[in-house]
Amino acid sequence: MSAPETRPLRVALLGCGTVGSAVLRLIDEQADDLTARVGRPVEVAGIAVRRPAHHPDVPQHLLTTDAEALVTRADVDLVVEVIGGIEPARTLMLAAFAAGKSVVSANKALLADDGPALHAAAAASGVDLYYEAAVAGAIPLLRPLRESLAGDQIRRVVGIVNGTTNYILSRMAETGAGFAEALAEATDLGYAEADPTADVDGFDAAAKAAILASLSFHTPVSAADVYREGISAVSATDVARAAEIGCTVKLLAICERVVNGSPGHPGDTVAVRVHPAMIPTTHPLAAVGGAFNAVFVEAEAAGQLMFYGQGAGGEPTASAVLGDLVAVARNRLAGASGQGPTGYAGLAVRPIADTPTRYHVSLDVADKPGVLATVAQEFARQEVSIATVRQDGHGDAATLVIVTHSAPDAALSATISALRDMPAVRGVTSVLRVEGLS
Amino acid sequence: MSAPETRPLRVALLGCGTVGSAVLRLIDEQADDLTARVGRPVEVAGIAVRRPAHHPDVPQHLLTTDAEALVTRADVDLVVEVIGGIEPARTLMLAAFAAGKSVVSANKALLADDGPALHAAAAASGVDLYYEAAVAGAIPLLRPLRESLAGDQIRRVVGIVNGTTNYILSRMAETGAGFAEALAEATDLGYAEADPTADVDGFDAAAKAAILASLSFHTPVSAADVYREGISAVSATDVARAAEIGCTVKLLAICERVVNGSPGHPGDTVAVRVHPAMIPTTHPLAAVGGAFNAVFVEAEAAGQLMFYGQGAGGEPTASAVLGDLVAVARNRLAGASGQGPTGYAGLAVRPIADTPTRYHVSLDVADKPGVLATVAQEFARQEVSIATVRQDGHGDAATLVIVTHSAPDAALSATISALRDMPAVRGVTSVLRVEGLS
Repeated sequence: MSAPETRPLRVALLGCGTVGSAVLRLIDEQADDLTARVGRPVEVAGIAVRRPAHHPDVPQHLLTTDAEALVTRADVDLVVEVIGGIEPARTLMLAAFAAGKSVVSANKALLADDGPALHAAAAASGVDLYYEAAVAGAIPLLRPLRESLAGDQIRRVVGIVNGTTNYILSRMAETGAGFAEALAEATDLGYAEADPTADVDGFDAAAKAAILASLSFHTPVSAADVYREGISAVSATDVARAAEIGCTVKLLAICERVVNGSPGHPGDTVAVRVHPAMIPTTHPLAAVGGAFNAVFVEAEAAGQLMFYGQGAGGEPTASAVLGDLVAVARNRLAGASGQGPTGYAGLAVRPIADTPTRYHVSLDVADKPGVLATVAQEFARQEVSIATVRQDGHGDAATLVIVTHSAPDAALSATISALRDMPAVRGVTSVLRVEGLS
Repeated sequence: MSAPETRPLRVALLGCGTVGSAVLRLIDEQADDLTARVGRPVEVAGIAVRRPAHHPDVPQHLLTTDAEALVTRADVDLVVEVIGGIEPARTLMLAAFAAGKSVVSANKALLADDGPALHAAAAASGVDLYYEAAVAGAIPLLRPLRESLAGDQIRRVVGIVNGTTNYILSRMAETGAGFAEALAEATDLGYAEADPTADVDGFDAAAKAAILASLSFHTPVSAADVYREGISAVSATDVARAAEIGCTVKLLAICERVVNGSPGHPGDTVAVRVHPAMIPTTHPLAAVGGAFNAVFVEAEAAGQLMFYGQGAGGEPTASAVLGDLVAVARNRLAGASGQGPTGYAGLAVRPIADTPTRYHVSLDVADKPGVLATVAQEFARQEVSIATVRQDGHGDAATLVIVTHSAPDAALSATISALRDMPAVRGVTSVLRVEGLS
């Protein structure tokens, strides 16, 4: 470009909700610092919204309803997409790339749905696609995974990446409430949306898990590849049982590299899943309460790392967007794009059935000789090895609390099905996976 | 350069101790991944060591004692400096820059001593100087501070950045041992060096604090600007007193932006200090035990963030070196350098005397009426406001435990001096700063 050295870099902002308005405010408040850090002033060229009348507080001359025209305008250098959802975000992003403009996005759903195609489109135009804000809000996470650990091999990423469910589970543990009651409280306080499905059923966490796995293992992983269980089936009993074995219940996003798997999986594979699990209260993730997020990373050489901070909210998310904006702006001025290939390893995604997990199971059984033997035999038949058993008798009934060793998830769930059908078992009162126990 | 696209990028390795040999191993083990991530193979062109005979395990034809010739060799593209210390590392680094080669370094002492001049030399040659490994080992920290938070304003960085002192303080808390005993144990176990001065007296942490402050506040801060107190004066009494007020003792590196200071400091200033302090056991840093490091960051928009991991050791440090190596290699292939300016803000460094801190003080006093009033009057005379007092009588003596509100450090230390001279005070049994109490 033959633009003079001092021409500002101009940003098209798509969307102006909580995050978008925080982005606007930061661009204004940090103007001098942004100029120093980028090497040129950064200014907003236009703001695409659906209903301009709903945005009385932003400079009116910047508002437009024609997002597609805005992203391709000649005076726009960079695009910030904070609309969310699949469409029209995808179409706008592809239009921006085609017009030679780098994009900063906070859109986890879109990146998890269609990451490889979007990256390919950006690369074909020699521009950047950055999206630190899409996972764990303000926590610097994608850049460390992609860049700081670029010379290492990541084994495992385990994160609490959804604040709403973490708040609900924290309240269940603190008050003994059931799921429905804790959800109602979260809704009242504004921690859960009116339709909480995306959070409570794990869709939000699954999108983030897909993004984390893609970057960690240099392998395309989409949301559809992620095994997903939400927290609506977590009961007060599950939470109480967890406490009895020194654990707490968290909704975890787990991305693992499984080295040289089983006969069906000759090479390394990746296993990506979201489900509630019991973790020891001594685990660094156990102390992450309320609406905070944290992500635990294990790498070959670096060992154990943890990243902690606010996972949502306008200001924290805007901080991550601005960090990316500085990076893509600097790349644009340097005439370079900033990222390496992300999908070269192309590892297979291992289905949950074949993925090694551990289970906690609580059973109500008849308190008579031979019941434990019968139950243990059922585990053995599925080749599931038992780590610990506790039996508490009360009258003619007893509670059996069993924690297994690691086994293929299908063998564990088959064992549970068989137990449910067993005459000696009056009820399976709690089943949850267990993570992080030694 | 007209080199063909497939020519490997060649690395000169300066130093081959614990970190250097781990770097060599990772370059070898991760060869395929590095090729994919960089876009070209990465290979080692030569290894400069003082005594080749001490390195029987590395390819002998790569060894040289002539480091200066190695860094300027035409077939060397990038330099990794893991010698440590000021010289000859500084001379070699400058020679590398002059020859147009980017440098990855793990050298905290040199960066803290002479960062601005080294950055200027790299910039003048259009090459990179990266040093993630210099602070907190494997924890991705400098890249997040510099890049992820580039659109935010950092207020405060508080870190446990020295594993040796953290191990000693952890053991003092666990066993009730005094400093000398815990140091002896650390030395026996290899957690402390034969000459532990750099760790125990806070020089290592001060160098890291200078680097963190420089990046966080875009202001040149050198090790000489950092107020420094080590842990050799921390007593078993201090540790016990901390536990009594729900705290634990940690050696902290604290970097703060003080907004619009006092009459003597019209603009924003930065305060950078290393000293032992009591922090609440509920603070995220309190749980960081043994040889782990953790750094707590507060930014305007991002809020509170924490980074946790292994702060030292060959493999973790090598992981950080390799991450930087990938970045500078990619920058070289793109014909760009990767970093923005670091010192543009040029804020003044505020001396410790003017820096607001809080103190905990334990006094042995005569248990008679009026003593508390006399003591309280002395705090008031120095305009130090008291937050809490606890008085425990035993016989004709009593213990006064006082925690102050925030006041200029000079006023606090003047108060302590005055208390020592007071007839009613039989002894000042414990004085430590307090951080993170609300």
